[in-house]
Amino acid sequence: MSTSDLDDARANPVAPTDYVQSLARGLSVLKAFGAERPRQSLSDVARTTGLTRATARRFLLTLVELGYVRTDGSQFWLTPRVLELGYTYLSALSLPDVARPHLESLAEQVEESTSVSVLDGDDVVYIARVPVRRIMTVSITLGTRFPAHATSMGRVLLAGLEPEELEKYLARAELTRMTSRTLTTIDDLRTEIEKVRTDGYAIVDQELEEGLRSLAAPIRDESGAVVASMNISTHAGRYPDDTVHDVLVPALISTADAISRDLVSTRTH
Amino acid sequence: MSTSDLDDARANPVAPTDYVQSLARGLSVLKAFGAERPRQSLSDVARTTGLTRATARRFLLTLVELGYVRTDGSQFWLTPRVLELGYTYLSALSLPDVARPHLESLAEQVEESTSVSVLDGDDVVYIARVPVRRIMTVSITLGTRFPAHATSMGRVLLAGLEPEELEKYLARAELTRMTSRTLTTIDDLRTEIEKVRTDGYAIVDQELEEGLRSLAAPIRDESGAVVASMNISTHAGRYPDDTVHDVLVPALISTADAISRDLVSTRTH
Repeated sequence: MSTSDLDDARANPVAPTDYVQSLARGLSVLKAFGAERPRQSLSDVARTTGLTRATARRFLLTLVELGYVRTDGSQFWLTPRVLELGYTYLSALSLPDVARPHLESLAEQVEESTSVSVLDGDDVVYIARVPVRRIMTVSITLGTRFPAHATSMGRVLLAGLEPEELEKYLARAELTRMTSRTLTTIDDLRTEIEKVRTDGYAIVDQELEEGLRSLAAPIRDESGAVVASMNISTHAGRYPDDTVHDVLVPALISTADAISRDLVSTRTH
Repeated sequence: MSTSDLDDARANPVAPTDYVQSLARGLSVLKAFGAERPRQSLSDVARTTGLTRATARRFLLTLVELGYVRTDGSQFWLTPRVLELGYTYLSALSLPDVARPHLESLAEQVEESTSVSVLDGDDVVYIARVPVRRIMTVSITLGTRFPAHATSMGRVLLAGLEPEELEKYLARAELTRMTSRTLTTIDDLRTEIEKVRTDGYAIVDQELEEGLRSLAAPIRDESGAVVASMNISTHAGRYPDDTVHDVLVPALISTADAISRDLVSTRTH
């Protein structure tokens, strides 16, 4: 992004003179590496980031110098030092540590993957997860984001917002259609969020992806405010509806309540 | 680091003109946040990073703009988006996912925390961990680094190096004294590493921290090369030596072997 691009972006709250383009570019080079492309050549990185080869080279060499990237002269790859960047966030949170043993018990009990996420802008972001190994697995890692409107954890987190925050979300959010079942109108979503608030949990059936059903409940702090959400995700059709309501929902809610209690006792000790 | 600092650093392989100082500074601002200081003022960040307030402000505002940091106008804190930076590394590794169910079984069986780490320079870096909840817990997260020479996983990883790589390590490593028991001479460490190579596991008793004992075994790829190490960490004195050798060591080695086998089958499928 050049300074003139920033001049054009009128919604941008940062004055162009305050924007450090080199930092943005360097972070884009770090993000160019991923599960599908852990080792890349200079040309690969230049193509992925849209930088010139000369610019990409300077950023790569700087990251090598800082210990975040290693190279054999032709290929580049990330080192474990990059974990320090992401984990500064997680290590400041007590919630993932508090939640993990509860997630593990629940995953073992219901034989389904369970996760905790928080709201970041209009997305849910996974901060803890216990996957169950199956042949068909869901590719989700910590840091994975999904649009809040189409997920059970998102609806629980939206239901936990103050009324004026929810209205701001509904006014600005893009309710992208992910499947034929996704709720994409503000009225439908508002009705569903009100139902979640009344019920104390959310079930979302194949609105994020065909074949995927999940149910979520709130994790609350000592004031009762919703600080995170946890879910059970399963394949649509694995369970009849009455099993979901009679078995999974109570197990989910009692786990979320146990995490909330532990979280409060962690914070007050 | 200024350009002239870099000129002075003759070991530095990056030409000063290739070094992007803004990227280094921006990453230092990200790293200024951590478990002990998740929320910071501009003055705090300037002090932690050694940058001027004006410079720290530009980096913070850029990180806010990029979505990695949020602010209420006086305090700054990280957002979950920073997870994307660290997790690009982890998501490219199959090892943590392969190892986790084995670590969980072992942790449950022996009621002790277990971890997997890799060698990065002269340090071990944690890439998977299953903690056991105790009143005295060890504060370790993914990305935590310890000097290889004073840890059981480090000795296993050093024992797995090619002879010439090990000699390079021994020639350059700072064998910092961590406790009164830490081996700090090259000869002592070399003897111990040879023993680990013969035994197939390492036990380190209170060399990293008083009261902490751990034992580690290698995780190998299909060629037999050591790609990672896993450990059981416990309090010194919890078990008599014969329990460690008769119970913990066999459980550890059979888990490490199971992870190695799974890793090979994951890679060949």
